[in-house]
Amino acid sequence: MPRMSAVVKERAGPGVRLIERDIPSAGPGEVIIRVRAAAICGTDVHIYEWNSWAQNAGIKLPIILGHECAGDVVEVGRGVDNLVVGDRVAVDTHIPCGTCRLCHTGRQHICQNLELFGVHTEGCFAQYARVPAACAWPLPQEVTYEVGALFEPLGTAFRGAQVLEPAGKTVAVFGCGPIGLFALASLRALGAARTIAIDVSPTRLELAAKLEADHLINPAGNDLAAVLIALTDGYGVDAFIEASGNTTALSQAFQALMKGGRAAIIGLPEKNLELDVGSDIVFKEATIFGIHGRLMFATWETMQNMVVSGRLQVESVITHRLPLQDFAAGIELARSSSAGKVILLPWQKKE
Amino acid sequence: MPRMSAVVKERAGPGVRLIERDIPSAGPGEVIIRVRAAAICGTDVHIYEWNSWAQNAGIKLPIILGHECAGDVVEVGRGVDNLVVGDRVAVDTHIPCGTCRLCHTGRQHICQNLELFGVHTEGCFAQYARVPAACAWPLPQEVTYEVGALFEPLGTAFRGAQVLEPAGKTVAVFGCGPIGLFALASLRALGAARTIAIDVSPTRLELAAKLEADHLINPAGNDLAAVLIALTDGYGVDAFIEASGNTTALSQAFQALMKGGRAAIIGLPEKNLELDVGSDIVFKEATIFGIHGRLMFATWETMQNMVVSGRLQVESVITHRLPLQDFAAGIELARSSSAGKVILLPWQKKE
Amino acid sequence: MPRMSAVVKERAGPGVRLIERDIPSAGPGEVIIRVRAAAICGTDVHIYEWNSWAQNAGIKLPIILGHECAGDVVEVGRGVDNLVVGDRVAVDTHIPCGTCRLCHTGRQHICQNLELFGVHTEGCFAQYARVPAACAWPLPQEVTYEVGALFEPLGTAFRGAQVLEPAGKTVAVFGCGPIGLFALASLRALGAARTIAIDVSPTRLELAAKLEADHLINPAGNDLAAVLIALTDGYGVDAFIEASGNTTALSQAFQALMKGGRAAIIGLPEKNLELDVGSDIVFKEATIFGIHGRLMFATWETMQNMVVSGRLQVESVITHRLPLQDFAAGIELARSSSAGKVILLPWQKKE
Amino acid sequence: MPRMSAVVKERAGPGVRLIERDIPSAGPGEVIIRVRAAAICGTDVHIYEWNSWAQNAGIKLPIILGHECAGDVVEVGRGVDNLVVGDRVAVDTHIPCGTCRLCHTGRQHICQNLELFGVHTEGCFAQYARVPAACAWPLPQEVTYEVGALFEPLGTAFRGAQVLEPAGKTVAVFGCGPIGLFALASLRALGAARTIAIDVSPTRLELAAKLEADHLINPAGNDLAAVLIALTDGYGVDAFIEASGNTTALSQAFQALMKGGRAAIIGLPEKNLELDVGSDIVFKEATIFGIHGRLMFATWETMQNMVVSGRLQVESVITHRLPLQDFAAGIELARSSSAGKVILLPWQKKE
Repeated sequence: MPRMSAVVKERAGPGVRLIERDIPSAGPGEVIIRVRAAAICGTDVHIYEWNSWAQNAGIKLPIILGHECAGDVVEVGRGVDNLVVGDRVAVDTHIPCGTCRLCHTGRQHICQNLELFGVHTEGCFAQYARVPAACAWPLPQEVTYEVGALFEPLGTAFRGAQVLEPAGKTVAVFGCGPIGLFALASLRALGAARTIAIDVSPTRLELAAKLEADHLINPAGNDLAAVLIALTDGYGVDAFIEASGNTTALSQAFQALMKGGRAAIIGLPEKNLELDVGSDIVFKEATIFGIHGRLMFATWETMQNMVVSGRLQVESVITHRLPLQDFAAGIELARSSSAGKVILLPWQKKE
Repeated sequence: MPRMSAVVKERAGPGVRLIERDIPSAGPGEVIIRVRAAAICGTDVHIYEWNSWAQNAGIKLPIILGHECAGDVVEVGRGVDNLVVGDRVAVDTHIPCGTCRLCHTGRQHICQNLELFGVHTEGCFAQYARVPAACAWPLPQEVTYEVGALFEPLGTAFRGAQVLEPAGKTVAVFGCGPIGLFALASLRALGAARTIAIDVSPTRLELAAKLEADHLINPAGNDLAAVLIALTDGYGVDAFIEASGNTTALSQAFQALMKGGRAAIIGLPEKNLELDVGSDIVFKEATIFGIHGRLMFATWETMQNMVVSGRLQVESVITHRLPLQDFAAGIELARSSSAGKVILLPWQKKE
Repeated sequence: MPRMSAVVKERAGPGVRLIERDIPSAGPGEVIIRVRAAAICGTDVHIYEWNSWAQNAGIKLPIILGHECAGDVVEVGRGVDNLVVGDRVAVDTHIPCGTCRLCHTGRQHICQNLELFGVHTEGCFAQYARVPAACAWPLPQEVTYEVGALFEPLGTAFRGAQVLEPAGKTVAVFGCGPIGLFALASLRALGAARTIAIDVSPTRLELAAKLEADHLINPAGNDLAAVLIALTDGYGVDAFIEASGNTTALSQAFQALMKGGRAAIIGLPEKNLELDVGSDIVFKEATIFGIHGRLMFATWETMQNMVVSGRLQVESVITHRLPLQDFAAGIELARSSSAGKVILLPWQKKE
Repeated sequence: MPRMSAVVKERAGPGVRLIERDIPSAGPGEVIIRVRAAAICGTDVHIYEWNSWAQNAGIKLPIILGHECAGDVVEVGRGVDNLVVGDRVAVDTHIPCGTCRLCHTGRQHICQNLELFGVHTEGCFAQYARVPAACAWPLPQEVTYEVGALFEPLGTAFRGAQVLEPAGKTVAVFGCGPIGLFALASLRALGAARTIAIDVSPTRLELAAKLEADHLINPAGNDLAAVLIALTDGYGVDAFIEASGNTTALSQAFQALMKGGRAAIIGLPEKNLELDVGSDIVFKEATIFGIHGRLMFATWETMQNMVVSGRLQVESVITHRLPLQDFAAGIELARSSSAGKVILLPWQKKE
């Protein structure tokens, strides 16, 4: 049986290992992808660290990490009629059941029985990966594998930007990790009049500046809500995206939100948020959108069209490219606040 | 100067008095209304009690209470060209400035400089009231003064129902005071497949039953979220309206909300809500709408058309009709959980 | 090989025959349905008559007619994991390719490579039918086979009603054949304040009356636009649904449409429509929706929930139930203007 | 009485004259504007020519031409509380009655009793103009008078672009006069992936190129629908804007429209359009929006925010600036296909 390299968590507890595994083969409705680029996500870091979220996420060990990737279809399982060998594809992490009420009504990405690629199934930090054909999105030649590997998180951020109807608005983005950076780029591409990037890390604010954020704010030592209200003639921001997972940020965001404003929440705080429902939501008639994924595949199509035409440019978010065996360094980078997106290249030889 | 009876709070502290006051006259842009029916709202109770909200609401004493009403235009101020003497009108409580960004963009009801009729200006628990012409809504003959006096709170509830896009959905209403009851009626009229009325008061659940609520639930002694999930084949409710102002109810509501569900929050809790942002909002992609008023006047028109055609029937929510001098009994009824809506009739003689 | 009765068009030209055919078996991704009720549609009449539309519709003869049906799944093909033998199902006529841009973005019902069940594939006027699993919609016990057989055309009408956002509006329906009747029922269920039924056939207007249409208008001898404008205080109707396929009706409809009004067009005229673009569309800012099908399956779910809860009642549209061998009488009824919907029952013995 | 220069049509028939007129004074609800820049519109050309449209538009002669302008408030009438002397403003042409159903529901721009500034009232091709305060939009310092004078037609085009939800889409614009050019700029700013400019005039296509249109097509000698379908992998364009007023163009546009596509129609054809309702609208489920104006003032605010932030740049559409006395040359330019937008400057001395 042919073998491949894969980043595997073998047992409960911190850490992962690069080991040899059998190359998978495609079952009915599945395809095998030769992984050409994979990206490290916060979820991978959680599994690496084996934090409380990871311990309770229903992960069956051992498991290959990773869920953001692009590559070539090399095998097509029975009953798959939307893909052929040789297709270039990216992958949506959300594996829908296909039969629940959510799946029946165009909301497969929040399927009632949702499974996650790379969490509940073997992932893509490997030379090959097995994915449901229903999760594979064909990439045109104009999209590189590296950018294709970004489409999953970019799609989340892009959809967060879309629901805000940002054209002509002033929008604050709390947290400039990869999701926040993608949100800034998306907002700009969708016509936001002004974007405000907020992060404690100067490195991340520099990355935000490359995406043409109009204001860069380090909340350290600032009354953030007051600063935002001053920037907007006393009205507050038209909308915000929460991508920091920080409840203090989220509280300030609601204070700084204009009457009639919109909020997209993507970040997952570790502790509960305290909300003054009257002043934060009711009196100002806030509209709040929880965002957990991308429409399969309406979001993908819109986003991809904008990437192909150059309206949406996100390459600058990639700060590091590493061969697969340097996964540990990659995960350290992703944990730090000194990186944008870290790409693993399973077929690149270490120099 | 001609005089009239009015329910007035004269000084800080609990209580109000029925006294004689001058009949007001119309300034530029204003009209004088002969009040034919007025309805008691929770806000009136707060001002009566002079609770902490009332103490901090910017009320200048003395003030005539009341803001929900209908009547006849008896005087028209300079520059008013949309009304004539003899018009029957209801009143929107929200007094817009007309020049802020919110007012310029069709959102006068959440004006940046919003003032409230009966809170920041003299109200309508009197035989006559002065109101800005911009807040007066002409009533057709088919709408009685009593029902017209309900339009302001009905509009809030109706709009809360509208944003849920309730057709074909199962919708829970937390709290069956007047707003919750109006919400049940509105949901039904807008095509909700099933409505679920939730209240601790058997009296209020009986009123909900008259509005054809499909399920009546007393949360006392129930695991409410579990009950709602069981009623919906494990999915949770498609949507909910929070009209209880109770944070425990709101927490249960979020737990019981289906993935992709919608929430309209109208009630104003006295304490902060604790939210598990991940499971309550993000993972389920909840969409949450704060509702503080009615569109001026798109909501009014839609609602009124449905009332006139009989699609929306809310008379049964009125449980008590009292002459003005019985205001104290009326306020006691409104404080209790044994009444629906209490109507004051300024021109009815006490029998 | 077991045999069944089927209504078949064997060669070009008018007419069809009831003959014996092999019972089909399920290929990959397909199911076999024991047809319990089927409904006759205008399309079936066209194929029966072999009119110019039918001659150019890409039909390969011989073919079993019929596409509106409900029944029991009796065989499940390979790769079908959303259905099991014994499931009660209705069928969507629109067979999507699954891979085009429309299918990828939640619009399978207007697939770029759309095929139609009963037009491009063998249909359901037979005791058994083969259908793609992707087109089968599971029915709950509360929905009878007969009503299930109506879901396909009801879904078209319901969606036409939905896009009008009819709550509180006055809506005219041009043409009270089955689609128009379903539209009237849907509008009513979705909260339209007033519905106006328009047809030259007194029989059909009677059927409209059973669906509680508020106004019944026979256009013969009337200036229809003037009548509608008079009914609406000079504004014109808020919205209309065109279900007559008559260009004169459509012209009048546009004249009678209010400024800012909405139009859903379902009927297919045989000749071109002449539009005064300025006065019919631009000056009044009309919004026009072409409606060719139902969302698969968001429309189905909403509609079914309303049927199950009793909010949407359409049984009265069924005026005739016939055993399969009486198909010829059924088609004559469908051609006439004296029937509502005609149901064929493949397993009912002729009395 | 102080006098001013004004371009006046004095009697029925072609032509206008520059004459002296009294400077107007402000009645109740009105303001007087010192006109700093005015732009010539096709409507002005129609009135100049006194064509059949102009003869039937309800114009009372004599009248000062012109309706697109910006300037300074120099006098404020009684009852105006949203403006003060010294405010810089642009003007919306649509004068709403304030009391009809359209005005009551946020659609003043298509008021049932709509009057047009410069058509039914004296216009702005003069040194001063009288306008209803309800039509005056305050301009921030960042917006020049010249760009402010474009806001009215830009707003129409911008709204036409908005309703198409153009982000990520391929959108064709038929006709590259000022409205078409503004549409191209708006589409680009709102995130359209590709814009296609169509005009027979090479000069106008050059102007389109300056607005970064991705494709420039001269329809002369081309099968336009075929070209558009070829450009879009056989699907057709996602959306189009009709700004040519040419029925042949409009027919081709519908043929070239993708299934599920959207169309915004702004141009006013002189003759009727023949539509194949089945293939042009129903089968492809086209959604068609008639666009006659801008929301007052939600469109203005969004558009202005994008102009101020530089997201939307339209200066290049201005090809000529002339002193008021050169109005005749300006109108000739506007009639030709060799100009973009022509600006008249009432206070500039002729060199």
